[in-house]
Amino acid sequence: MARSIVSIDDLSNEEIEAIFRLADQYLAEMGTPGRPHRVQGRRRDAESYILATIFFEPSTRTRLSFESAMLRLGGTTISSADPNSSSAVKGETIADTVRVCENYADLLVIRHPHEGAAKVAAEYTSVPVINAGDGSHEHPTQTLCDLYTLRAAQKEKGAAPGIESLRDMNVVIWGDLHHGRTVHSLVFALARFGARIIPLAAPGCEFPEHVQQRLARDYNCFPLSRKDVDSLPEDALPADVLYVTPDQPHQLALISNVWFQLSEKQQASIRSIKSIDAFYSTRLQRERLAPGQQVGEYPVIDSQFLKEKKYRQAQVLHPLPRVDELSYDVDQDQRGVYFKQASYGVPVRMALIAALLELQPSLLGAERKRNYPGYQHADGLECSNSRCVTRQEAERRYLVPKFSIVDANVPILRCAYCDHEQRPQAVGRASTHKYTTELAEWQQIHAQDLVFFLNEQQALNAGYQLKKTGRSSSSAALAAQPSE
Amino acid sequence: MARSIVSIDDLSNEEIEAIFRLADQYLAEMGTPGRPHRVQGRRRDAESYILATIFFEPSTRTRLSFESAMLRLGGTTISSADPNSSSAVKGETIADTVRVCENYADLLVIRHPHEGAAKVAAEYTSVPVINAGDGSHEHPTQTLCDLYTLRAAQKEKGAAPGIESLRDMNVVIWGDLHHGRTVHSLVFALARFGARIIPLAAPGCEFPEHVQQRLARDYNCFPLSRKDVDSLPEDALPADVLYVTPDQPHQLALISNVWFQLSEKQQASIRSIKSIDAFYSTRLQRERLAPGQQVGEYPVIDSQFLKEKKYRQAQVLHPLPRVDELSYDVDQDQRGVYFKQASYGVPVRMALIAALLELQPSLLGAERKRNYPGYQHADGLECSNSRCVTRQEAERRYLVPKFSIVDANVPILRCAYCDHEQRPQAVGRASTHKYTTELAEWQQIHAQDLVFFLNEQQALNAGYQLKKTGRSSSSAALAAQPSE
Amino acid sequence: MARSIVSIDDLSNEEIEAIFRLADQYLAEMGTPGRPHRVQGRRRDAESYILATIFFEPSTRTRLSFESAMLRLGGTTISSADPNSSSAVKGETIADTVRVCENYADLLVIRHPHEGAAKVAAEYTSVPVINAGDGSHEHPTQTLCDLYTLRAAQKEKGAAPGIESLRDMNVVIWGDLHHGRTVHSLVFALARFGARIIPLAAPGCEFPEHVQQRLARDYNCFPLSRKDVDSLPEDALPADVLYVTPDQPHQLALISNVWFQLSEKQQASIRSIKSIDAFYSTRLQRERLAPGQQVGEYPVIDSQFLKEKKYRQAQVLHPLPRVDELSYDVDQDQRGVYFKQASYGVPVRMALIAALLELQPSLLGAERKRNYPGYQHADGLECSNSRCVTRQEAERRYLVPKFSIVDANVPILRCAYCDHEQRPQAVGRASTHKYTTELAEWQQIHAQDLVFFLNEQQALNAGYQLKKTGRSSSSAALAAQPSE
Repeated sequence: MARSIVSIDDLSNEEIEAIFRLADQYLAEMGTPGRPHRVQGRRRDAESYILATIFFEPSTRTRLSFESAMLRLGGTTISSADPNSSSAVKGETIADTVRVCENYADLLVIRHPHEGAAKVAAEYTSVPVINAGDGSHEHPTQTLCDLYTLRAAQKEKGAAPGIESLRDMNVVIWGDLHHGRTVHSLVFALARFGARIIPLAAPGCEFPEHVQQRLARDYNCFPLSRKDVDSLPEDALPADVLYVTPDQPHQLALISNVWFQLSEKQQASIRSIKSIDAFYSTRLQRERLAPGQQVGEYPVIDSQFLKEKKYRQAQVLHPLPRVDELSYDVDQDQRGVYFKQASYGVPVRMALIAALLELQPSLLGAERKRNYPGYQHADGLECSNSRCVTRQEAERRYLVPKFSIVDANVPILRCAYCDHEQRPQAVGRASTHKYTTELAEWQQIHAQDLVFFLNEQQALNAGYQLKKTGRSSSSAALAAQPSE
Repeated sequence: MARSIVSIDDLSNEEIEAIFRLADQYLAEMGTPGRPHRVQGRRRDAESYILATIFFEPSTRTRLSFESAMLRLGGTTISSADPNSSSAVKGETIADTVRVCENYADLLVIRHPHEGAAKVAAEYTSVPVINAGDGSHEHPTQTLCDLYTLRAAQKEKGAAPGIESLRDMNVVIWGDLHHGRTVHSLVFALARFGARIIPLAAPGCEFPEHVQQRLARDYNCFPLSRKDVDSLPEDALPADVLYVTPDQPHQLALISNVWFQLSEKQQASIRSIKSIDAFYSTRLQRERLAPGQQVGEYPVIDSQFLKEKKYRQAQVLHPLPRVDELSYDVDQDQRGVYFKQASYGVPVRMALIAALLELQPSLLGAERKRNYPGYQHADGLECSNSRCVTRQEAERRYLVPKFSIVDANVPILRCAYCDHEQRPQAVGRASTHKYTTELAEWQQIHAQDLVFFLNEQQALNAGYQLKKTGRSSSSAALAAQPSE
Repeated sequence: MARSIVSIDDLSNEEIEAIFRLADQYLAEMGTPGRPHRVQGRRRDAESYILATIFFEPSTRTRLSFESAMLRLGGTTISSADPNSSSAVKGETIADTVRVCENYADLLVIRHPHEGAAKVAAEYTSVPVINAGDGSHEHPTQTLCDLYTLRAAQKEKGAAPGIESLRDMNVVIWGDLHHGRTVHSLVFALARFGARIIPLAAPGCEFPEHVQQRLARDYNCFPLSRKDVDSLPEDALPADVLYVTPDQPHQLALISNVWFQLSEKQQASIRSIKSIDAFYSTRLQRERLAPGQQVGEYPVIDSQFLKEKKYRQAQVLHPLPRVDELSYDVDQDQRGVYFKQASYGVPVRMALIAALLELQPSLLGAERKRNYPGYQHADGLECSNSRCVTRQEAERRYLVPKFSIVDANVPILRCAYCDHEQRPQAVGRASTHKYTTELAEWQQIHAQDLVFFLNEQQALNAGYQLKKTGRSSSSAALAAQPSE
C-alpha cells in the first residue's frame, strides 16, 4: 500500500525537513509572479501521472494550489469539485469512490466534511491519498505551508536553516481555535517541534478538549500558567497561559506543576521572553458554528496593534481567506507574511507530490508506527463524535469502529479516524457474551475477544450479560432495572 | 461528417472487437493502480487534440473516466460540468451549444437529461460526439465497459478471446430494469451477441415496453418461458423467463412459441443450463422515479446469496455507484468483478477516443446503415415521450420530429432520437391536406408528401380534411362532433 | 506591473491590429473543425505557463474558449468556475483572491458580477489580468472577436485588410442595448474606428446615459438625426438616428448640429447610404432586469426580414447564446456569420494570451495613458452605481473611491472602476475641513487636499463646514435646516 498523508503525524521530522529542502529548490526555480519567462521550460518529472482533486466541500485556494503544483511538475490533473455533481448524491461511499477513482488518477487529493474521511480513503485505495481537509479534523498540507513559513521566518532572523529552528519560538494562535482544522494540525506540529503555543481565542472559540488532551498525551505538551513563571515580564505575553514541551519527554501527571518538569535551560529561556515571534490569525469558521451560536468579541490585528514593542519581531501569518480579523493596513507591513505564506503553497505541495509519487529518490521512509495498541470490534463502543466518518449512515455499511487505547489505565480509547477520545464504562468478551464494569480486566482479555461498551445499557442491548463477581457495583444498578 | 457514438448500435460487431483489442493493449501498458513508475512516459498519440466534456447532469465517474482516458493518450481536456453554470440556463439549445463548442475541442462527450440529446448533438456538429448518457435512453460507453468485462470473464473461463464468446452466456439482469439507461444499452448488446438475458426486476422496475419491443424487432430476441423448456433443472434459473436469440435470424411472430424457433443445438444448450455466468446488478434510479412512486422489495446480492451452487461460476457486475443492492461482503469474493469493471473504463474509453480521432488506422468503417425507412414531417405526429429532446420547448425552435417506420404493416413509428414507438391513427397527404384512417394507404404516398397523425383530432387541428371513401368508420366519429 | 486587458480601451489601434494579424496566423494553422489530423503537433509556445479562469458568474462559452486557446498554445489551465465553491462565499475580497491566485497561475481571466471588479483585480496582482466580463460594464475579448469578425467581413467585400477597414461601416446594433456589456464595449470600439452606429433597441432597452456620454466625450461620437441628412434615401436606415464620428476630432458642443461638424467627404458618404453592412443582434439579458421589469416587443431577425434589398450585403452577428431574437432559418444564410464569429474566439484569444505573456516579441507597447486628470479621496463622493465594485461591503475594507475628472468645467467625475459619471455639488479642502458649493474653486485646490462631495449634506456629515463667502446660495439652504 502506498504512503498517504492524512495527518501531519504521518510524516516524521526528517521527512518534513526533506520535503522542505526540495520545496526550497522548487521555490528558487519559480521566481516571482508576474515576471514572464521566469520559468525555463516545463518540468517533466510527473509527466506520466494524473492527480485527482476530489472535493466534497467548497474550496478554491487549496484545490487550485494542488492543481498548479501538479502542472508545474509536468503532470496533469482531473477534478471533481462540485459537491452536488458527484456520485455522493447518489449515495456512494468514500470507499467505493476511491476504489473507482484510483483507476483514473495516480494520486488522490480529498476534501470531505466528515472527520476521518481521508483516512478511510487511504485505507481503501492503493494509490496515495492526501487529506485536503476533513471536517474540523486536520488539514496537513496547510500545516506544512505554515511550518515552512515559520521556518523561513526563523531563517531570516538568523537561525540555522531547518525545521529544528522552530524550537522555543513563541507563537500566538489567534481567533477561532475551536473549529479550525488548520489550527489543530498546526498546534500538534508546533508541540512536536518544541515551539511554545500561546492561545488567544475569541470567547467561545477555545481549543476543544480533545485537542488539549492530544497535546498532552501525544506531544507531552502542557499548559503553563504565567503566574507560575517567576520574573516573567508583565507584558511578555498577550495570554495567561502558554503551552510548553519539556526537552526530556517523560510522562507528566496531569495535575503536576509543569514548571518543574522543565529543564533549567528551558526555564531560563521562558523567563527571558520579551517578545512574540509570530501571530497565527484565523477567521471565524462561521460555517461550522451551531445554528444560533454567538461568538464574543473577535480579536483584530491591525497596524496600530502591532506597534507594541513586544510585537516588533512578530511575523503575522494567516491561512486566508480573512474576513475582519486581519486589517488590510497590515498588507504594507513587512511583518505581514500571509501572502508569502500563500505563495509557499505551490512549492511545498510540489515537494509533497514528488515525495508521494517517488519522483525523487528516498524522500520518505516506511510508514510511521503508532505507539498505542489498537482495538476494533463491530459490537460495542462507537465513536461519540457525530461528525465522525464512522457515524455516517452510508459509511456504516462497511466501516467497523476502530480505536487506539491511548491510556491503558483508565482506559481511554481514541477514534482511529477522527481522534476523538472516549471512556468506555464496561468491557466484555465476545466469546462468552459476558461483560463487567471492572474496566481493568480488559488487559486480561485477548484482543480478538475484547469488546468495549459505552455503558452497561449498551452491553445489555447487545445481548451481553453481567459477569458475576459479587463485588461489582453494577449488579446493584442492574438490580434496579429488573423489568428491562 | 465525423463518426459519432450515440448508441451501442452505432458500432458493428467487428468495430467493437477492434476497439476491445486496442483496449487490451492499453490495459497491458497501464499496470496496476498504486504502483508508481508503472507508466513508461506519457503517450503522445492525442497530443494535438482537445476533448470536451459537456455535462448537463451530475456525474463524477463517467466524466473523470473520459478525462483520464484523454490525458493517458497525451491529449488535453476542457470541461463544463455544472448544469447551472452553463449557457443552457440562458436558454441555449443543444444545436447551438455544439456548434460553438466544436471550435473549442476536437471531440465532444455529452451527458444530457433529455432522451435523444446526444443524437441531436451529433447531427449539428462536424466533430465526433460521444453519448455519455441521455436521460433514461442510452449510455453506450458504459455498455462497452460491461461487454469488455463479460468478455474478460469468458476468457478467464477458457473461452476463445473475442466478443463472440458472449454467445450463450446466461446473464441475470438484476434490480431496476426500468429506469436504467445502462441496462437498456446492455441488453440490446447482449441480444445482439446472442447471450441469454434473465431479467430479475424489483417489483415495479420491469423492462419498459419499448425495450421489449426493440429486443424483439431489432435483435430477434424473445422471451422464453421456463415452463416451455422440458428437462430444464428446477433451480437452473432465478427467473421464470429468459430472453433468447435464435441462431438463424428470421421474423418471429409475436405470438408463436419461441422454443420451436430455436435450433436443436440451442435447445440442447438451454436444457443443460446448470449455472449462471454473470449477474448484472443495478441500483434503484431514485432520481428518475415519479414523485411519490414506491418500489417493492429490492433484490440484494450478498455472500450468503452467492453460496448457491448454480452461482459458483457467476461473476458479479455492477455499473456503480451501488447503494444497498450489493453487499460490501462481496468485495472480498473473487466473483465480485465490479471494481475490475470500473477499471476497464479508462482503457476502453482510450480505445474509443483513439478510434474516433483516427489515432489508429482503420478501426472504424463507414457509418452503420439502418434497415428501416425514415419519415420526417413538421406537421402531424410528434414523439409521445415527454422526455424526448424533440418535445422540449427550446429545441423545438429548430428540430423537426423524425421517425423510423419499424413495422410497415401496423404501421409503427420509432422516434429517431429517443427510440420510443408510437402507432399513428391517421395518415395524410401534405399536398392535398386530406387524411384517412385507412393506415395501409401510407405505402402509396410519396415520402415528401407523407404525414402521419397521432389521431384524427390532430389531423383536423392541423387543417386536414377527411378523405371521402364511403367506408371509413371515422366519418361517424366526425359526425358526432359537428359543433367543432 | 504587467499589462492587463480590463477594457477594450487598454489596447491601442496598433496593438489591436497586431493581435489580429497574429490571430490570422493561428486561424490559418487550425483548419476546420471535424477534420482530424488538422493540427500538425501541439504548439509549445506557452508550455511553461498556467492560465487560471476565475469565474464568479455562470459561463461556459467564454471560459472554455480561453481554456481551449491556452491549450492550443501548449499551456495548461486551472479553473474556478462555480461561484458557490469559491472563497468568495467565505467573504474573501477580490484583492485577496488575486494576490493568492497569482501564485497558482501566470495569467488570470476573471468574470465577476460587480462592475469594475476586473480593474481591481489588475491593480492588486503582478500577473496579467483579462476581464472576461464585469457585470454590465465591459467584455473586451468579446469585442475583439466582434471586431475581428467585422474586419473579416470587410475583407471579403474587398476592403484592404486591417482594422481601419471598419471606418464608415453602417452597423445596426440590435436588441438589448441597455444591459449588454458586450454591446457597450463594442460601440466604444466602433466609435473609435469610425464606424457608424445605428441603434435599434427593444423598447425599454435603449443605450444607458453613461454610454451615450462616454461615446460623446471619449470618442467624439454623436447622434445624427436622419432628418438632418438631406437626400438620404427614405429606406436607407432602419432607425431614426445614427452615431457618427467626425474625421477631425474636435470638441463638439452637445447642442450643436452634428451634421455641420462633418467633413464634406463624410457628408457625401452618409448621403449615399443605401445599405446596411452588419447587424449585431443580442438577446435580452433577462438576468439583469429589475424584478418585475417588462420589455416591449423584441425585434427578430429571420430570413424573411433579410429579404429587404438594403440588407443584401448585411452580415448578421450575434455574441450567442441566442433565444428568440435570431431565427434558426438564418443559419443556412451565408450572411449569418455568428458561428464564424464564435469560431474566431479561440485564435483571437490565443493571440491576446500570446501578447500578454510575451510569447511573441513586441506585440504590445507601454500601457496606454489616459487623458483625464485623476481624483481619489477616502472622504466625500463615492460612485453612485450600486453595482460598482467600490460600493460592495467586502471590497470597501480596502478600496478608496477613484475618479477621472472628465469635464473640468461642470465638473463631472467618472468612476475609475465602473465608468459611471457623477456631478458633485460641493467641493472641500481636507486640510481645513471647509467646503463650498462654488464648484469652479476645485481647480485652485491641490490634488492631495481636494475632496468632492455628492451634496452639502454629505460634506456636513463628514464634519466639513461651509466656507464663508457671503454670496453662496448654499448658506441659505443651510439656514433652512437649523434643526439638523
